[in-house]
Amino acid sequence: MNSEVLHKLQTIVGNKNFLNSEEDKICYSYDGTPLFYKQPEAIVFPQDEEQISQILTLANQEKFAVIPRGAGTGLSGGSVPVDNSIVMVMTKWDKVLEIDKANLTAWVQPGVVTGALQALVEKEGLFYPPDPGSLNVCTIGGNVAENAGGLRGLKYGVTKNYVLGVEMILPTGELLRTGGKNLKDVAGYNLRDFVVGSEGTLGVFTKILLKLIPKPQQSITLTAYFKNLSDSGNSVADIIASHITPSMIEFLDSTTMQCVEDYTKIGLPGNAEAMLLIEVDGRGSAVQDDAETIENILRKHNAFGVAKATTEQDALRLKGARRSAFSALARKKPTTILEDVTVPRSELPVMIEKISQAAKKFDMYFGNFGHAGDGNLHPTCLTDERDNAGIANAHRAFDYIFNEAIILGGTITGEHGTGLAKKQFLESVAGIPGVEFMKKIKVSIDPNNVLNPGKIFSISPRCEGSLPRSVQHDHKH
Amino acid sequence: MNSEVLHKLQTIVGNKNFLNSEEDKICYSYDGTPLFYKQPEAIVFPQDEEQISQILTLANQEKFAVIPRGAGTGLSGGSVPVDNSIVMVMTKWDKVLEIDKANLTAWVQPGVVTGALQALVEKEGLFYPPDPGSLNVCTIGGNVAENAGGLRGLKYGVTKNYVLGVEMILPTGELLRTGGKNLKDVAGYNLRDFVVGSEGTLGVFTKILLKLIPKPQQSITLTAYFKNLSDSGNSVADIIASHITPSMIEFLDSTTMQCVEDYTKIGLPGNAEAMLLIEVDGRGSAVQDDAETIENILRKHNAFGVAKATTEQDALRLKGARRSAFSALARKKPTTILEDVTVPRSELPVMIEKISQAAKKFDMYFGNFGHAGDGNLHPTCLTDERDNAGIANAHRAFDYIFNEAIILGGTITGEHGTGLAKKQFLESVAGIPGVEFMKKIKVSIDPNNVLNPGKIFSISPRCEGSLPRSVQHDHKH
Repeated sequence: MNSEVLHKLQTIVGNKNFLNSEEDKICYSYDGTPLFYKQPEAIVFPQDEEQISQILTLANQEKFAVIPRGAGTGLSGGSVPVDNSIVMVMTKWDKVLEIDKANLTAWVQPGVVTGALQALVEKEGLFYPPDPGSLNVCTIGGNVAENAGGLRGLKYGVTKNYVLGVEMILPTGELLRTGGKNLKDVAGYNLRDFVVGSEGTLGVFTKILLKLIPKPQQSITLTAYFKNLSDSGNSVADIIASHITPSMIEFLDSTTMQCVEDYTKIGLPGNAEAMLLIEVDGRGSAVQDDAETIENILRKHNAFGVAKATTEQDALRLKGARRSAFSALARKKPTTILEDVTVPRSELPVMIEKISQAAKKFDMYFGNFGHAGDGNLHPTCLTDERDNAGIANAHRAFDYIFNEAIILGGTITGEHGTGLAKKQFLESVAGIPGVEFMKKIKVSIDPNNVLNPGKIFSISPRCEGSLPRSVQHDHKH
Repeated sequence: MNSEVLHKLQTIVGNKNFLNSEEDKICYSYDGTPLFYKQPEAIVFPQDEEQISQILTLANQEKFAVIPRGAGTGLSGGSVPVDNSIVMVMTKWDKVLEIDKANLTAWVQPGVVTGALQALVEKEGLFYPPDPGSLNVCTIGGNVAENAGGLRGLKYGVTKNYVLGVEMILPTGELLRTGGKNLKDVAGYNLRDFVVGSEGTLGVFTKILLKLIPKPQQSITLTAYFKNLSDSGNSVADIIASHITPSMIEFLDSTTMQCVEDYTKIGLPGNAEAMLLIEVDGRGSAVQDDAETIENILRKHNAFGVAKATTEQDALRLKGARRSAFSALARKKPTTILEDVTVPRSELPVMIEKISQAAKKFDMYFGNFGHAGDGNLHPTCLTDERDNAGIANAHRAFDYIFNEAIILGGTITGEHGTGLAKKQFLESVAGIPGVEFMKKIKVSIDPNNVLNPGKIFSISPRCEGSLPRSVQHDHKH
C-alpha cells in the first residue's frame, strides 16, 4: 500500500484516528484465535458513517482490503487482517442510543460491550439474553457479525433471535437500513437475518436495533457430578424428553473440571467424569416444579453432590466453574485451541465419546465442555504453537472431530463462525451448491472483494476489470 | 410458448401430470389475492427432484418462467402466473417423512397441509405453532415461501422461527441443502433463514425440516368488548407493559364484529366499538396468574362482557369470532381486499385510527381486525372489482394506509408477502439500497430470471446474452 493511499486514509479519519506504527500494527494483527496473525498496513477509527463510506470507496478505487473489528475476541479469525489490508476499529462507537420500553427494543452502536448493555437493560426490568463467554469484553457489532451464542441459547436462542434491525455501510459505500421495530415484516427478502452472521463480509454495522424481553422473575440453578460420562448424557436426554426447556444445560468433562479446580479451588470433586450445570427460569411454581423434575432425573442417573441455588449469589458461585472453564484450560499450556462443534442433541453422547477418542488417537491433551442442551461442544486442545509436531497432531485431531460431527448430521461451528479457521471445512458441511450460493452473493454485493476478503470462503480472482489481488490468499504463519 | 417446448414438459412429467386445457389454465390463473389473474401456458405436477431440475433447466434454455405453488391461498399474488409461464404444483408432495421425538423435529414435504401437520404432532404431545388463517388448506411449502404468520405469533413467532432446514432445487437446476437438526449453526452465510420468505423466487422447496416444541400444558382464553376503541388499544399496551407474553392478542373492530354476528349468530354485542381475544398458555399457576392480571387490566379499561374459557371446547367457541372474520367480511361484497399493514406495537392505536380515517376519506367500506399483540392489522376493504371507481378509491385508501404505516416506522406487509400486490411499495419501506441488494442476489442466483419472475420486484431486462423477456412485466387485468 503506497504512502499516498495511507495519506488519503489519514486525511479521511484525521491524525488521531489513524495508526500505522510497527507497535500498533502488531497489536491489531490478531484476534482471539490462535495460530492466525497478519499485520495490517494501518488502523483507522472512523468517526461517522460518511468516513466509513469514503474509506470503502477508496478501497474499491485502490484495491485494498478493509477488516472491520470490535474487541477482537473472535475465535475463528474473522477479524484477522489479510495482505494489503487496513483494520477498521469500531470500539469507540459505544453508545446505547435508545431504550424503548413500550416496544421492548434498544438502538445501540456496534461498539457497545455486551455485558454493559445487559446490566443497563436489567436495571429497567428488561433482559438481553445472548451471553457469549467474552461478554464483559466483546461488542454487540462483533456478536451480530458472528451470530454469537452463549450459555442461555437453549431456551433463549442466539444473537440473531434478538436483532430487529441494522444500519450498515455496504462494501460499495452506500448506507443500507434493514429491519425495524415491527415484530413481523416480510417486505422483500429477509436481509436483516441474512446479514447477521455474515462475519463482516457484507457491510460495516453502524447501528443495531435489538429486541429485549422481560427479565425472568426467578431462576433455580443446579449442579451435579457423575462418575460415568454416559450418565450425564442420559440425564440431558431425559430432561429434553420431559419437555422442560431449561435456560441452560452446560457440560464439563473431567479434564476441564480438574483445570477449573486447580485454578479456582471451589471444591469440585476429583472422582467425577462429568459435571452438569442446569438453570431453569420463568415465573410461578413451574420453576420449582421443573427444578424438582430435573433433580429426580439427575438422581435417577446416579448424579452425586447435587447442589441447588435459588439466590443470584449462590447461582453465580455454581456457575463459576463453567464461566472460568476457558481461562482455567488456557493456563495449562501456551496455546489453547478452542473448537465449536455442534451436533443434533440426540447425538451428543456419541460426539463426546468421539472427542475422547480423538484425544487418545492423536495423543493430545483435550478438555471438553459446552452447551449440552443445544448440542454445542467446545473441545479444547491444550498445546504449544512452537511445537510443529504437536500442532500438526492437533489439526489431525480436529479434522477427525469435524468429520465425525458431519457424519452425525452436525456442523463445524455452532457459534464462533467460519472465518479463516474453518473455511477449509465449509464445503463439507454446507455443500458445493451452498458455498457457490454464498460466493455469488458476496461477489454481487462486493464486486472488488474489499470487505473482509478471504473470510468464510475464498473468491477466485475475477476476470472482469480489476486485477487479481493477493488479498484473497490469506496465510497462516 | 411453442408446442415443442410443451411437449418436452409433458415428456418430463408424464401425461397424467401435465395439464393445458383452457379450463385447467383458468383454474391455475389466480391465488387468494383479488385483482390479479393470468393464465399459464401449462400446469405440471413434478414427481421427483430430478423432474423439477429438468423443468428448470429447460426453462433456462427456452426462456419461459416457472411459478411454483402449493394450495394457492397466498394473499399477495405470489403464485399468480406471469406471461409465458407454467405453474408447478407441489400439493402432491404431501408426506410427513419423519417425526424425531429425540430432537423435536419433523421432516416434511412441501405439500403437507399445515393443520394436518399440527394435528399429527399434537398426538405426540408436540406442537407446531405457526397458524395462518388458511391452516386447514394451505401447505407448509407456501408457508415457508411467504414466511406465514398467524394468531400465535406474539409468543411463538412465525414460520421462519420453525424452519431448521430445507432442500430446494435452485433456478439453475442444482439441489441445495441448507440447515439441519443442529440448534446452532454458523457455518457460512445463513442461507436457511434467507430462503424463508423468498416467495418462490430462489428455489423450489422439496423437503423442509421443521422445529417442534412441547405442547403447552394449559391455556386460558379471554374475550372482552369495548365501547371505545381507545380502551382496547390501552388494554393491549398495558398487557405488554405488564411483561406478560400472551400467546395471542387479537383485535376485531365493530364492522368486523357485525359481519361475524350476521354470519355466525354467536351473540356478539351490537354496541361495541372493539373486541379483544386473548390467550395465555404455559405451565403451572403462572397461567392463572396471567389470566387474572389481564382480566384486571381489561376491566380497568372499561371492558364489558368479559368471558373466560379454560377448556379447549369453550376456547374454540370464543375464538370462533376471530377465526371466521375473513369469511364473514368476504360475504358482504363480491371483492374482499385484505391487507396486512404492521407497525411497532406502541403505534397500534394510531394506526387503527388512520385506517378509520382512510375509510372515511375515500368513502370505502372497511373492516379491520388482526394481531394486535404484534402490531399486525388486516384492514379489509369490501368492494366490487367490476366497479372501476370503487377499485380506484380502494387503491387510494390503501396507498394512504401504507404511507401512514411507513411514517410510523411500520411496514407494508407483516405476514402475507410482497408478491405482485405490494411490489410498488417495496422501495418506500426497504429503501433503494435494500431493493438493489435483493435484486443483485436474485440476478446472481437466477441469471435468466426463470423462477417466479416479477414477484417482490421487477428485474430490468439484462443485456448479457439472453434477450429481454416480456415475462418480467406482469399485468393486472
